[in-house]
Amino acid sequence: MQMLGLDLAGCHDDRIGPSGLTTSALESAADSLSSMIEKVYESAGSGMAGWFNLIHDPMRSQHLDAVRHACSTCGDADTVVLLGIGGSALGPAAVHAALRPVTWNLESDEHRGGPRFFVLDNVDPDLVGPMLELIKKDDPRFERTIFNVISKSGETAETAAQFMIVRSMLEAAGGQARIVATTDPSRGTLRTMATREAWPTLPIPDGVGGRFSELSPVGLFPAACCGIDVAGLLDGAAAMDERCRNRDVMVNPAARLAWTLVEMSRCGRNNHALMPYSNRLAPLADWFRQLWAESLGKRHALDGSEINTGPTPLKALGATDQHSQIQLYREGPDDKVIGFVTVERHDTLLPIPTRNDDDALDYLAGHDLGALLKAEQRATEYALSESRRPHFTISMPALDASSVGQFLWLWQITTAMAGHLLGIDPYDQPAVETGKQATFGLLGRKGYEDWKDKVDSLLS
Amino acid sequence: MQMLGLDLAGCHDDRIGPSGLTTSALESAADSLSSMIEKVYESAGSGMAGWFNLIHDPMRSQHLDAVRHACSTCGDADTVVLLGIGGSALGPAAVHAALRPVTWNLESDEHRGGPRFFVLDNVDPDLVGPMLELIKKDDPRFERTIFNVISKSGETAETAAQFMIVRSMLEAAGGQARIVATTDPSRGTLRTMATREAWPTLPIPDGVGGRFSELSPVGLFPAACCGIDVAGLLDGAAAMDERCRNRDVMVNPAARLAWTLVEMSRCGRNNHALMPYSNRLAPLADWFRQLWAESLGKRHALDGSEINTGPTPLKALGATDQHSQIQLYREGPDDKVIGFVTVERHDTLLPIPTRNDDDALDYLAGHDLGALLKAEQRATEYALSESRRPHFTISMPALDASSVGQFLWLWQITTAMAGHLLGIDPYDQPAVETGKQATFGLLGRKGYEDWKDKVDSLLS
Repeated sequence: MQMLGLDLAGCHDDRIGPSGLTTSALESAADSLSSMIEKVYESAGSGMAGWFNLIHDPMRSQHLDAVRHACSTCGDADTVVLLGIGGSALGPAAVHAALRPVTWNLESDEHRGGPRFFVLDNVDPDLVGPMLELIKKDDPRFERTIFNVISKSGETAETAAQFMIVRSMLEAAGGQARIVATTDPSRGTLRTMATREAWPTLPIPDGVGGRFSELSPVGLFPAACCGIDVAGLLDGAAAMDERCRNRDVMVNPAARLAWTLVEMSRCGRNNHALMPYSNRLAPLADWFRQLWAESLGKRHALDGSEINTGPTPLKALGATDQHSQIQLYREGPDDKVIGFVTVERHDTLLPIPTRNDDDALDYLAGHDLGALLKAEQRATEYALSESRRPHFTISMPALDASSVGQFLWLWQITTAMAGHLLGIDPYDQPAVETGKQATFGLLGRKGYEDWKDKVDSLLS
Repeated sequence: MQMLGLDLAGCHDDRIGPSGLTTSALESAADSLSSMIEKVYESAGSGMAGWFNLIHDPMRSQHLDAVRHACSTCGDADTVVLLGIGGSALGPAAVHAALRPVTWNLESDEHRGGPRFFVLDNVDPDLVGPMLELIKKDDPRFERTIFNVISKSGETAETAAQFMIVRSMLEAAGGQARIVATTDPSRGTLRTMATREAWPTLPIPDGVGGRFSELSPVGLFPAACCGIDVAGLLDGAAAMDERCRNRDVMVNPAARLAWTLVEMSRCGRNNHALMPYSNRLAPLADWFRQLWAESLGKRHALDGSEINTGPTPLKALGATDQHSQIQLYREGPDDKVIGFVTVERHDTLLPIPTRNDDDALDYLAGHDLGALLKAEQRATEYALSESRRPHFTISMPALDASSVGQFLWLWQITTAMAGHLLGIDPYDQPAVETGKQATFGLLGRKGYEDWKDKVDSLLS
């Protein structure tokens, strides 16, 4: 397996001057980081750190078997529609984008090699309505469409609303409903419904929060439906896990990355951009945005003190955003760290042809397009260095399952470690409750009448 | 015409407490803001503020005529491919997304009602290669495909490289090339090429920088090709312009918005999120990201002093990102302003059906999906208020050309005014030059040999 690379030199003082991190600071921190690594791995697998079990047997084999079994019943599907939001949608969308061609949903059925894949992760009627109409037009009884509804509790308002609309359409169409429910193994509204209706189901184990669930059946089932090497994803994650267990922080990529970014936040660089030089990897930056923001953005420390901490994740895309964000990244406030994500080996070779015009564009001729992209990334790295702005690079060996699995696991462990360094609980999200309850109130749910009054009187 | 709404109450002290803006502060600033408005409109139409002319005759009529003429030669196209990057791509992509159904490129030719529209705004070979192959598969001689290449100078490396690949494919396919060049009216590499080859062209007038060019032929031509009401876009912009000329800051939306956001930056809220509650409006937030970052992110003030200023724009999507970013926005550092964008009247009505399950989901039944979306936005606004985090709301009357035109113009004027308040030049982008020159060096362009050495020795 080719290993994912991590280059943090762009955050250090020999690259960006005195405001960079120093080797002596890292060496001084090494012992406490080593004990941090030990603590993170001591709790791995228990409580809300249950997601560490996903890559190990017996869970790994159980999930792969269940996913393969569910897929085998879907062999003739020409469309898979995911109903879910947040962690139930961002991972599946990102892995699909990374590992299937950009043209996947635009190809004809013969050329595609698997079902179309749509993620409906919002309750915008101008998204959901036209998408369902489109699918119905091609498949009036929905007999070649699979709806994969994903919710641990079954009570996520957005997913529930979508699903109520879909069920009603399926009933009206009179076809054989093709629903696969990914939910809690034993409890909850969706589990109850699935049992009653005898839908195929897949488990979301306890201890696997939404944003840490991509390598559970939440992510594995839709990936497998589209022919993605799901064992390869898990293999990549397991290989990364080996590196991240190492108590020597100098060779532990997650510990190095977590320490670097937390230190950067402490010295005022609290905006953390992830900037893949690859359109297919751009949605991985959305996945990172949730993981980083929701895990680390916390009012209270574990000791109860009020700290209002948390870095702001930024999504950017290279080379495109050189024409949008780099002006700010170089000349604006020194409050950012830019994380490049590069691809060592692209799937496509696309030479820029030679011409006979002998003009200002001749320098491009004969290069591969990937070489231009690589040159742009290096040039941007140089430009940031010249402006003394911190940056780092994650290099993916290729657009393959192993690289993506390594990437996902690196950030999940880095997030757990950063939570430890910040002294917060990376696994809760207390601040989203208010909005949920206010929504219940506004929609007239019994028991939430007071919330409507509170909202109306404040916003008047 | 229905007017776009702007509600800034969520930034004021009576909503969010003492860290909010006060009415007395606004009143104290009113005179200087009035003179700022006057100065912005004094320079409107000249120099790099030439974009103010786009909504007025004679330029308006000239551009509409030219765009209609170019479109009439493309009537039978089934695909339009835009080759461009930055300001040449973000506006066209955003306007298309806002004003055409989400399913546009997925529909069959009969159902669509206009050509497919693809924006190739990167040099990722795994984007460009497969997209061009897909188009070629459907249209082997490219005779029903129009390539709209957009570059003021013709020397933007990314656009030039794409275009060299496309030209070579067109020549190899042997069809009649269908190229429309949007470029400088008289100078530059692309203009020279277009004249020699007799391609149809459209002008990018002087004084219209990339990020202020959406309402020039840059944006109008691709929009018109897909049946978008381009005169309606300009009408919306002109109506907004009337409101933004008003020297009374209390009723001038751009001046109020610019003052609010600049004041917020001054008190530490330098991260400015735009969060449309609409998938179709999400790409407008990418357009905003460029406008805000590249215009305001500056090292030097106009007086030459070093200030390293500029807000960081954030893109978010409601309700989706309630499950990703709201935890951070409520509990993280108080360094953000959240701008909601709402749609008063959706294109689609999608009722959530009633059921007989009598369970925890009954409260959803009978509501329209748009009502759920609206409730979620209000609930989030309430939750931010409760956490005393500043926010504002832009309400779009509908997903129509007039609303989008108003929105674009509001932000363009707001940007010019914010530049004035910050004391910087919103129209230059000096920091992107280094990266361009380093790229030339890495690719072996004559005269740039030193750059390769500089990059290699620094990044080694």
